[in-house]
Amino acid sequence: MRKYIPICAAALVTLSAIPVLGAEEVSVGDTLINLAYSIDTFYFLMSGALVMWMAAGFSMLEAGLVRSKNTVEILTKNVALYSIACIMYMFVGYNIMYGDGISSIIPGLSFWLGGDNSAADVLKSGGETYYSSMADFFFQVVFVATAMSIVSGAVAERMKLWSFLAFSVVLTGFIYPVEGYWKWGGGFLDKLGFLDFAGSGVVHLCGASATIAAVLLLGARKGKYAGGRVNAIPGSNLPMATLGTFILWLGWFGFNGGSELKISNITEANAVSMVFVNTNMAAAGGLVAALLLSRAWFGKADLTMALNGALAGLVAITAEPLTPTPLTATIVGVIGGLLVVPSIVFIDKARIDDPVGAISVHGVVGTFGLLAVAFTNPEGSLIAQLTGIGAIFGWVFSTSFIVWLVIKAVMGIRVSEEEELEGVDIAECGLEAYPEFTSST
Amino acid sequence: MRKYIPICAAALVTLSAIPVLGAEEVSVGDTLINLAYSIDTFYFLMSGALVMWMAAGFSMLEAGLVRSKNTVEILTKNVALYSIACIMYMFVGYNIMYGDGISSIIPGLSFWLGGDNSAADVLKSGGETYYSSMADFFFQVVFVATAMSIVSGAVAERMKLWSFLAFSVVLTGFIYPVEGYWKWGGGFLDKLGFLDFAGSGVVHLCGASATIAAVLLLGARKGKYAGGRVNAIPGSNLPMATLGTFILWLGWFGFNGGSELKISNITEANAVSMVFVNTNMAAAGGLVAALLLSRAWFGKADLTMALNGALAGLVAITAEPLTPTPLTATIVGVIGGLLVVPSIVFIDKARIDDPVGAISVHGVVGTFGLLAVAFTNPEGSLIAQLTGIGAIFGWVFSTSFIVWLVIKAVMGIRVSEEEELEGVDIAECGLEAYPEFTSST
Amino acid sequence: MRKYIPICAAALVTLSAIPVLGAEEVSVGDTLINLAYSIDTFYFLMSGALVMWMAAGFSMLEAGLVRSKNTVEILTKNVALYSIACIMYMFVGYNIMYGDGISSIIPGLSFWLGGDNSAADVLKSGGETYYSSMADFFFQVVFVATAMSIVSGAVAERMKLWSFLAFSVVLTGFIYPVEGYWKWGGGFLDKLGFLDFAGSGVVHLCGASATIAAVLLLGARKGKYAGGRVNAIPGSNLPMATLGTFILWLGWFGFNGGSELKISNITEANAVSMVFVNTNMAAAGGLVAALLLSRAWFGKADLTMALNGALAGLVAITAEPLTPTPLTATIVGVIGGLLVVPSIVFIDKARIDDPVGAISVHGVVGTFGLLAVAFTNPEGSLIAQLTGIGAIFGWVFSTSFIVWLVIKAVMGIRVSEEEELEGVDIAECGLEAYPEFTSST
Repeated sequence: MRKYIPICAAALVTLSAIPVLGAEEVSVGDTLINLAYSIDTFYFLMSGALVMWMAAGFSMLEAGLVRSKNTVEILTKNVALYSIACIMYMFVGYNIMYGDGISSIIPGLSFWLGGDNSAADVLKSGGETYYSSMADFFFQVVFVATAMSIVSGAVAERMKLWSFLAFSVVLTGFIYPVEGYWKWGGGFLDKLGFLDFAGSGVVHLCGASATIAAVLLLGARKGKYAGGRVNAIPGSNLPMATLGTFILWLGWFGFNGGSELKISNITEANAVSMVFVNTNMAAAGGLVAALLLSRAWFGKADLTMALNGALAGLVAITAEPLTPTPLTATIVGVIGGLLVVPSIVFIDKARIDDPVGAISVHGVVGTFGLLAVAFTNPEGSLIAQLTGIGAIFGWVFSTSFIVWLVIKAVMGIRVSEEEELEGVDIAECGLEAYPEFTSST
Repeated sequence: MRKYIPICAAALVTLSAIPVLGAEEVSVGDTLINLAYSIDTFYFLMSGALVMWMAAGFSMLEAGLVRSKNTVEILTKNVALYSIACIMYMFVGYNIMYGDGISSIIPGLSFWLGGDNSAADVLKSGGETYYSSMADFFFQVVFVATAMSIVSGAVAERMKLWSFLAFSVVLTGFIYPVEGYWKWGGGFLDKLGFLDFAGSGVVHLCGASATIAAVLLLGARKGKYAGGRVNAIPGSNLPMATLGTFILWLGWFGFNGGSELKISNITEANAVSMVFVNTNMAAAGGLVAALLLSRAWFGKADLTMALNGALAGLVAITAEPLTPTPLTATIVGVIGGLLVVPSIVFIDKARIDDPVGAISVHGVVGTFGLLAVAFTNPEGSLIAQLTGIGAIFGWVFSTSFIVWLVIKAVMGIRVSEEEELEGVDIAECGLEAYPEFTSST
Repeated sequence: MRKYIPICAAALVTLSAIPVLGAEEVSVGDTLINLAYSIDTFYFLMSGALVMWMAAGFSMLEAGLVRSKNTVEILTKNVALYSIACIMYMFVGYNIMYGDGISSIIPGLSFWLGGDNSAADVLKSGGETYYSSMADFFFQVVFVATAMSIVSGAVAERMKLWSFLAFSVVLTGFIYPVEGYWKWGGGFLDKLGFLDFAGSGVVHLCGASATIAAVLLLGARKGKYAGGRVNAIPGSNLPMATLGTFILWLGWFGFNGGSELKISNITEANAVSMVFVNTNMAAAGGLVAALLLSRAWFGKADLTMALNGALAGLVAITAEPLTPTPLTATIVGVIGGLLVVPSIVFIDKARIDDPVGAISVHGVVGTFGLLAVAFTNPEGSLIAQLTGIGAIFGWVFSTSFIVWLVIKAVMGIRVSEEEELEGVDIAECGLEAYPEFTSST
C-alpha cells in the first residue's frame, strides 16, 4: 500500500497551489470537472464562431448570385437580419425554445437571458452540467440567424428591405423558437423520436418553408419569365459566390460538429471527429455529383450548380452526420447533389422564382436529409421523420404566410416596378455596390 | 478504506504510461497542471489566429471603401504594415511593453524574444505560470498590427506608401508598446485603476490618435471639399467592405475573448463565454442602431453606416465586455452605433477627410467605450478612465505628430497632385486592382 | 496518512458522477487520459478546419491572378479538385499513405476507412493512442487537397477542365500518397532521417513537381511570349488575390501548427506555440523582403510579388517551423522572399508560363526550405534532405509526366485556340465570372 501514498500526497500539495477555483485547496475530482467544463465550453465557443461565420457565407453567396444593381440591398439585408436575430433571440427566442414549456406543443414565455451556471452548482452536479449556458446561447443564436439567412436569397432583387426585416423579427423571435422547442427544447417531436442532429429540419427546412410562403406572395422578378420563356439572370460576381460557399462549408464544421454538444471524453471526441469527416465527405460528394450531372445534362460544367451541390450535400448530412460511415455520408451527399439540380430546374420551370436556389437546397434537400435518417440511423423511424417534416413545414409555412400577408397589407412587400428596373440598391440604400464597374449601366 | 486504494493504484499504473512529460512517472497534480496549461495555450493560439484574421478584415474593408484606382496601394499598405508590426514587435516592442520597466512611466528596453517557460518551471510554480509565453507573444503581436491597421484607412488615397510604412515601424516598435506598458505591462495607468479589458484605449484610441495626427498634416483628398461642398466619394466595392466587416466581427471574438487570458476552469470558461456573447450583442446593437438612424436621418438604409455601426459596437464594448449583462452590452453597442453616424457626418463637415470613418469608429467610440466602463464595471472610476484617455491620446498624438513631421520633412507624406488624380496604384505599385473592369476610366 | 484519504475519497465520489465514459465509476488515471485525448483531438479538428480553409485561399488567389474570362473555370477546378481529393483519399489514398507497407518503398493497398479507436483500446494503451483516427483522416485529407491546389494556378487559362480533374484523381489517390508514405507513413525517407515537419517537400514540392510536368507539356498561353517579348498578363482582381493570401496565411497556422500532432502537455503546447510564431514571422519576413526587392529592382512596390513573398516565407518555414528561434524563422522567410522574386522572373524569361508563380513559390522555395533544415535543426542532414528532394521530385515528376501524357493522348489537355481567345469560362462552364463588369470585352 505504501507506494501509492506519495501520489495522493503530491496531488494534495500541488493542487492546493493551482489557481483553478480561487480556493485554497481543490480536490482532484473537482479539478477534473473544471477541466472538462472548460474544454466543452471552449469547443462550443469555437463552434459558434464558425457558425457565425456562415452569416458572411450567405452574404457573399447571395451578393455574388444577384445582379450588381441589387447587391447593396442584399448585403444590407444579411447584416441586418443577423443582428436582428441576435437581439430577438436574446430578448425572447432562446427562452421560448429552451425554457420550461406549458405543454409539449406550447412553449413557455419569458424574457432576457438568465445568469450562467455557478461553479458551485456545476461541482455539485458532479459534472452533469458540463458547459457554460452563455456559450450555449452563443451557439444557438448563430443557428437562428442561419435559418433567417436562407430566406434572403430567394426573395432577392424585388422584396422591400424593411418588410423583410420586419419579418425577420417575427421569425427569429417566435416562429423558429417554437418549432425549435418541439425538437431541441424537448417538445413533442423529440418525444416522438424525430431525429434531426443539427437542423436539416429545425433550421434548413424552417428557412425554406418561410421562403416558400414569401415567394408565393411576392411573385417572380420582372423579365424572369417574359416572352413565355425561363430567362436566365446570371449572377454578377461568381468568385464572391464561390467564396461564400467555401465560408459556408467551413462554418458547417461548427454547425454540425458543435451539435454533438460535448467533446471532453474519448467517445465524444471520436463522435465530433466523425461528424467533421462526414460533413466534409457529404459536401464533396454533393459537389462532384452536381458538377457531373450538369455536365451531362447541360453540356457545361456549371459552377453555380456545383456550389449548390456542395451546399445540398451539407444540408442532406446535417440531419444525421454521426451514424453513417464516411462512405455512406458521401453517398448521402451525392444524392443531395443529384436532387438539387433537377429541383432547381423544376422549380424554375414551375415559375417559382428563386434566384439562388434556396428552396431546392434547404427545402427539398433538407427534407431528403431528414428522410435519409430513417435509413442511416438505426434508431430512425420513417413515421417520426415524416411527422417532423409535416409539423415543421406546416407550422413555419402557415405562420410565415400569415405574417407576410400582414406585412403586405401594412407596408407592402414588393418594390415598385421602376425601383426594380433601376435596381433596389439606389432606391432602398442610396448606394451602388460597384459604382465604377457598372457606370454605363 | 480499502475501496479507495484501487483508484490510486490505477492512477499510478496508468499515469506512468501517459506520454505527458517524457518522464517515467507523473503525479496526478502535475498532469492536471499540464492539461490546464495546454488548454489555456490552445485557447490563446486560436484567439490569436482570429485576431490575425482581422488584418484581412481591415484590408478588405478599406479596399472596398476606396476608389479602384487607389486599391492596390491600400492592400499593399495593409499586408506590409502587418508584416512590419510582427517584425518590430518581435525585435523590440514586446519587450518594451512587457519587460521590466525603469519606472511606472518609463519602460525598459531589450531585444528579441526570450525562451518559453520550461515544463519544470511551470510545475514548480504550481500552475501559476499557466500558458506558453510564445502563445502570449503571438496573441500580443496581432494586437499591435490591429492598432496600425486603423491608420491606413483614414490616410487612404493620398499618402505615400513608403512614408506610411516608415511610420508603422515607429508606431509598432515604440509608440504603441510604451502606452501598452502603462496599462497591460503594469505601468502607472494600471496602478491607477484605469480599466481597458481588450483595448478600446490601448489599441483603438491609440490607432485613432496616430490617425488624427496624420490626417491633420496630410490634408483632404483633392476634390473632397471642392466647390465649398462636402462631396461624397463612394467606395468601389461594397461586397468587399461587407466581407471585411464580417471578418472583423469574427476576429473580435478572439480579440475580446482571448483577452480574458484564461479559460481552464468553470469561472474562466463562463467569463470567456460572457465576453463572446457581449461582443456579439454589442455589434448587433450597433449595426441596427446605425441602420435605423441613417434611415431616419438620410432617408436611406446606408450600408456603410450600418457596417460602421457594427464596428462601433465592437469598439465600444471592447473596454469592458465581461461585467455587463447581454442586454447592457447591446445598449452599449446601440450607443456606439448612434454616436458613430453623427460623428462621421460632423468630422466630414469639419473638413477632416477620413475616407473610412476610422477616427469616428476607433477614436470617438473608443473614448465612449472607455468612459462607459465607469458605469458598467463596479470597479470602474471615471477619473481613472479620463486619465487613461488623456494619457493615451496625449502620448500617441504628440509622438505621432512629431514622427509624421520628421517623415514629411525627410521624404514627404503626400503623393503629387498628378499621382493622386491618376490614382496611387499606378504611381506607387505599378499595378491596377481591376484592370479589366475600369479600363475606360 | 489520514489526511490524504479525503482526496481519494472525494475523487471517487465525484468521479463516479462525471458523465465521462458512461461507466459508473472511472479512475482518475482514465479520466486524465480521456481529457488529454479530447484536447488533442479538438486541436486536430481545428487545425484541419484551418487547412480546409486554405482551399478557399488558393481559389481566391488564383481567381484574382487570372483574367476575368478564365475565372469561372479556375474556380470550378478548385472546388472540384478539393472534392475529388477528399473522395480519392478516403477511397484509397489514406490507406496507401498510412497503412502497412509492403516494403519501405512500396506501400500497401486497401480501401475505405477503418473505424475509430475504441475508448477501451485507448485506455488500455495508457494514452499512447492519443487522438481520434477520424480527426487524423480529416487533417490529412485537407493536406492532399493543398498539394493538388498548387497545380491549378500554373496551368490556368489554357488547360481543359476535365483533363485537369482526371489528373487530380490520380495525384490525390496514388501519386501523393506514395511519396507521403515514404516520409510520414514511416517509409524509407523517414528511416533515412529526411526531415519535413509539415510538408515543404511532401506537399509543396510534390505539387510543384506535378505542375512542372504539366506546364512542360501544355506550353505557354497565347500571346504570353508573342513578339519575342515576355508580356505581362495582369490579374483581374487583386483584392481577391490579397484575400486569398490572407486566407492561406491563416490556414497555415493549422497546416504547420497541427503538424506537431499533440498539444496536451506543457512541452507540446510550447512547441505548437513556437510553430505558430515562427510560421507568422517567416511569412512577415518573406513579404517585406519581396516588397523591398521588387521596389529596388522594378522601381515599384509590386503587390503580387509581396504576396508571393509571404507565401514563399510560409513554404520555406514549413519544413522546420519548430527548432528555429523567431529571429531565425524570420531570416528563413526573408531568404524565401528574396528567392521567389528572381525565380519568378527567371522562369518567365525561360518561357515557362506559370500565371501565379506556383513553381517558384512551392517548388523553388520548397526545395530551399528542405535544405535549410540541415542548418536550422541539429538533427538535419544535408544528404538526407537532398535524397528526399530527389526522391519526391523524381517520383512525382515522372509519374505525373506519364499521366499527363496519357491524358493528353486520350482526351487532350489544352483547349482550342478559339476557346483560349474567347476565354475558357464560356467554353467549359457556360458562365461568365463578372457578366456586368466586362460586357464590352
